[in-house]
Amino acid sequence: MGWDIFWSETIGSAILLLLGAGVVANVILPKTKGFAGGWLMISFGWGFAVFAGVYAAWKSGAHLNPAVTVGVWASGAKEFVPGFAVTFPHMLVYFAGEFVGAFIGAVLAFLAYKKHFDQDADPAVKLGVFSTGPELRSYAWNFITEVIATFVLVYFVVVSGQTKGSALGPLAVALIVVAIGASLGGPTGYAINPTRDLGPRIAHAILPIKGKGSSDWSYSWVPIAGPLVGGILAGLLSQATI
Amino acid sequence: MGWDIFWSETIGSAILLLLGAGVVANVILPKTKGFAGGWLMISFGWGFAVFAGVYAAWKSGAHLNPAVTVGVWASGAKEFVPGFAVTFPHMLVYFAGEFVGAFIGAVLAFLAYKKHFDQDADPAVKLGVFSTGPELRSYAWNFITEVIATFVLVYFVVVSGQTKGSALGPLAVALIVVAIGASLGGPTGYAINPTRDLGPRIAHAILPIKGKGSSDWSYSWVPIAGPLVGGILAGLLSQATI
Amino acid sequence: MGWDIFWSETIGSAILLLLGAGVVANVILPKTKGFAGGWLMISFGWGFAVFAGVYAAWKSGAHLNPAVTVGVWASGAKEFVPGFAVTFPHMLVYFAGEFVGAFIGAVLAFLAYKKHFDQDADPAVKLGVFSTGPELRSYAWNFITEVIATFVLVYFVVVSGQTKGSALGPLAVALIVVAIGASLGGPTGYAINPTRDLGPRIAHAILPIKGKGSSDWSYSWVPIAGPLVGGILAGLLSQATI
Amino acid sequence: MGWDIFWSETIGSAILLLLGAGVVANVILPKTKGFAGGWLMISFGWGFAVFAGVYAAWKSGAHLNPAVTVGVWASGAKEFVPGFAVTFPHMLVYFAGEFVGAFIGAVLAFLAYKKHFDQDADPAVKLGVFSTGPELRSYAWNFITEVIATFVLVYFVVVSGQTKGSALGPLAVALIVVAIGASLGGPTGYAINPTRDLGPRIAHAILPIKGKGSSDWSYSWVPIAGPLVGGILAGLLSQATI
Repeated sequence: MGWDIFWSETIGSAILLLLGAGVVANVILPKTKGFAGGWLMISFGWGFAVFAGVYAAWKSGAHLNPAVTVGVWASGAKEFVPGFAVTFPHMLVYFAGEFVGAFIGAVLAFLAYKKHFDQDADPAVKLGVFSTGPELRSYAWNFITEVIATFVLVYFVVVSGQTKGSALGPLAVALIVVAIGASLGGPTGYAINPTRDLGPRIAHAILPIKGKGSSDWSYSWVPIAGPLVGGILAGLLSQATI
Repeated sequence: MGWDIFWSETIGSAILLLLGAGVVANVILPKTKGFAGGWLMISFGWGFAVFAGVYAAWKSGAHLNPAVTVGVWASGAKEFVPGFAVTFPHMLVYFAGEFVGAFIGAVLAFLAYKKHFDQDADPAVKLGVFSTGPELRSYAWNFITEVIATFVLVYFVVVSGQTKGSALGPLAVALIVVAIGASLGGPTGYAINPTRDLGPRIAHAILPIKGKGSSDWSYSWVPIAGPLVGGILAGLLSQATI
Repeated sequence: MGWDIFWSETIGSAILLLLGAGVVANVILPKTKGFAGGWLMISFGWGFAVFAGVYAAWKSGAHLNPAVTVGVWASGAKEFVPGFAVTFPHMLVYFAGEFVGAFIGAVLAFLAYKKHFDQDADPAVKLGVFSTGPELRSYAWNFITEVIATFVLVYFVVVSGQTKGSALGPLAVALIVVAIGASLGGPTGYAINPTRDLGPRIAHAILPIKGKGSSDWSYSWVPIAGPLVGGILAGLLSQATI
Repeated sequence: MGWDIFWSETIGSAILLLLGAGVVANVILPKTKGFAGGWLMISFGWGFAVFAGVYAAWKSGAHLNPAVTVGVWASGAKEFVPGFAVTFPHMLVYFAGEFVGAFIGAVLAFLAYKKHFDQDADPAVKLGVFSTGPELRSYAWNFITEVIATFVLVYFVVVSGQTKGSALGPLAVALIVVAIGASLGGPTGYAINPTRDLGPRIAHAILPIKGKGSSDWSYSWVPIAGPLVGGILAGLLSQATI
C-alpha cells in the first residue's frame, strides 16, 4: 500500500506545482498572455491548483503538503487512510511523495513556459515562479506569517470532516487556499507547505534556466519551519476543541 | 454547553477577522504582494473568510455576527442549536464569543502584517485594515446603507434553511457575503456585523501600531446600530413570509 | 396561492435588483470603494445577485425574469410549481411580481448609494446603474445580442432539471449568469430580462436623482423584446431536444 | 442513438464556443463594456463556458473536445455512455458534433459582437476571438505547452469519476478549466481542444469579417496535435494508476 500512497501524493503534488508555479509564471514572466494579471488571479490559480491536485491524489487523502501530514499526526488521528496507520515511516512515505511530486511539477511548469524563461527578466522574477520570498525580509516576522497562514489551512483540514459542509469535498479546501492567498499571502507569498517551496527551489538550482540568479537558500528554512510549526499547532488545538 | 458555544463562536470569529482584516491589509498596506488588488479581491476575501470561519464554528451554528444572532431571535426560532434555547443570556454568550474572536482575529492579522504596518502610510489606511469607514460621511445615509446590506445577509440566513440549495452549506453564505461586498460595500465598506467592526477598532486603539492615528470613535456606532436594525428587520420579515 | 407566488417573485426580484444595480453603482458612481472595479466584478456581482434572489424566491421556483416565465411556457411545461398550472393569468402573476420587485430593488439600491448619486457625474452614468444601454447603438444588432444571450440563460433553465448537476441548485444558474455577463455582456450590458430593465428605468424616471438626464426610452424596447424572443426560442428548442 | 450523441455534442460545443469566443471578444475587441478586462476574466469566462456547455450536452457525457474523446478511448473505457460503445465510428460521431458545434458557436459569437467586429482593430485581434495563437512562436515548445495543459484536463476527466468530489459534477470540470487557463494559458492561449480551435478558425476564414487578416493556418496544426497527444497520454497514464 505504501507505493500507492507514494504515487498518489506524487502525481497530486506534481499537478499542484505545475498549476501553482504556472499561474505565477503567467503573471510575472515577460510576454505571457496573463502578464500583470494581479494577486487575485494568483490566489485563484493556487486554490484551483489544490483542487486539481486533490482529485489526482484521492487514494492517499490528498495531503500534498507535509504540514498537513504532521497536522493529522498531531491531531491524534489513528490512520491516514483506512488501512494505513499514522506512524513515522508512513509519514516519510507522504513526505517523499510530496517532495518528488513538487519537484516534478516545477519542472513541468518550466517546460510549459520555457520560451518565456528564455526572455530577459530580473533573476528574482524567475526564482519567484519556483519558490516563495518575502517582500520585507525579516526571518522572525516572515516565520510568524507562515505559522499563522498554515494554521488556518491545517485547522480547516482536521476539523472539516466533522461538519455538514464536507459534501463540497475538494472545493472547500480549494476555497480555503484561495482565502489564505488573498488574505495572508501579502508578506511572504504563502508557502504554507514545505515541499511546495523546497522541491521547486531545488529544481531552480538544477535546471538550465537562462539568466537565472541565486536560489536564495538563506531564506529557504522559513517556508519549511513555519508551515511545520503551524500544522502541528493546528493539530494540537483541534484535539482541545473537537 | 455555553462554553462550547462561546468557544466555537470565538474561534470562528477569530478566523473570520484574521482573513477579513488580512485581505484588506494585503490590498492597502504598503509593499504587500497584493497591493492595489482591487475591490473584487476584497469582496472574495471577506466572503471566503466567512467560509473558513463557518467551518471552524460549526458547533454553534456559526453566527459570527450579532446581527445574525438577533435576526434568528427576531425570526421566532426556538433554539440556536439543538439544546441551546433562544434566550437573552444565551444571546449574550454568542455576543461574547463574537466579540472576543473578532478582537483576537484582528490581533493575529496585525501580527501577520507587522512589517507592513511598520511602513509609512496614511493613518487612515492603517485604521482601514481594522474597521470600516464611509467614503462620504453622513451618519444617516451610512446607517441606511448598513441596514440594507445587513438585511440581505440575515434574510438569507433565516430563510435559506427552507430551500433546496442548502446542500451548499457554508458556500452559500460565503457567496452571499461576496455579493454584498461587491454590490453594497461601496459607500461604507460593509461592516454588516457589529463585532466585526468594534472588536478590531478596540484592537486598533490598544495595539502599538507605528504611526497610527485616531480610531474614529465618532463613526463607531453606525456599524453597530445599522447591522442590528437590519438583522432584526430581516428576522421579522421572515416571520411574515415563511 | 397566487399571492404567495407574487410575493415570492417580488422579494426575489427586489434582492436581484438591489444587488445587481448595487454592483454597477459601486463600479461606476464617483467616490465608491469599488470604483473602476472592472467588468469581471460586475459579472460576478450580477451572478451572485441572482444567487441571492433565487434563495429568497424559492416558493415560486425563482423565475425573477419574464423571459424565464415565457421560456417555461414555451417548453411545454404543465405547472410552474406543483399546484400552479401554466396559464396566461398565472404568467401575469409572475410578470407582476417580477416587475414590482425589480422596481423596489432599484429604489433600495438608490437609497444605499444616495450620497454617491448626489455627486457630479455624467447623467448617462447615473442611468447606467438602473438600466442597460448599448456601447454601439444599433437596434437590430443590439436586439440580436439580447436574443442570443437570453437564449443561453433560458435554455439552461429549462434543460438543467434533467441533469446530474442539479444538486448545485442556485449556484448553477448563478454561474451561468456570470458566464453570460463575462461573455455576452460586452455590447449591450446584458439585460436578458425585461423587468430587470424596465422596472429600474421607471424608477430612474420617477426618483429625484440629482443631475439625472434622459431615461433613454427610445432604447427601452430592445431589452424587453430581445429577452422575450430569446426565452421563447429556448423553450421551443428544448421541446425538440429533450 | 448516434444522432442523439451528435446533437448533444453539437449544442454543447456551440454554447461552449459562443461563450468562450464571447469572453475573448468582450476583452479584446474595441468599445466593449469588458474591454481590457484581463486574463482572469478570460479564464473564468472559458471555465464557465465549459460549465454551460456540459449542462446542454448531458446526454452524451459532454466531451465537447476530441482530446477528451480520445482520452476516454485510451483509458480503456468500454462505453462512452451506457449503450454507446467505444468504437472508431462512434468516436467519429463525437468528433463531428464537436466540430460542427464549435463552428456554429463561433458564428453566434460573431453575430453577438458584429458591431464591434466592424470597428477598426488589428487583424490579429479579430482572429484572436476565434482561434488561439502563441505569444512567442515556437512550434516545438508551443506543442509541448498544449500537451501538458491538455494532459491536466483529460487526466482529471478520466479519474474524477472515481473520487468523492464527483457530486460537484459540471462545476469540477469548469474549475479545472479555469485553473488551466490561469496557470497554463500564458504561452499559447490554451486551445486544449482541437475542434475549439479548428472550427472557429474555419469560421474566421469563411465569415465576412470587416478588415480581417490571415487565419494563420501555419500554426493551426499545433492546437490539434498537442491536445490529441496530451489526451492520449492522460488516458494511458490513468490505466497505470487507477
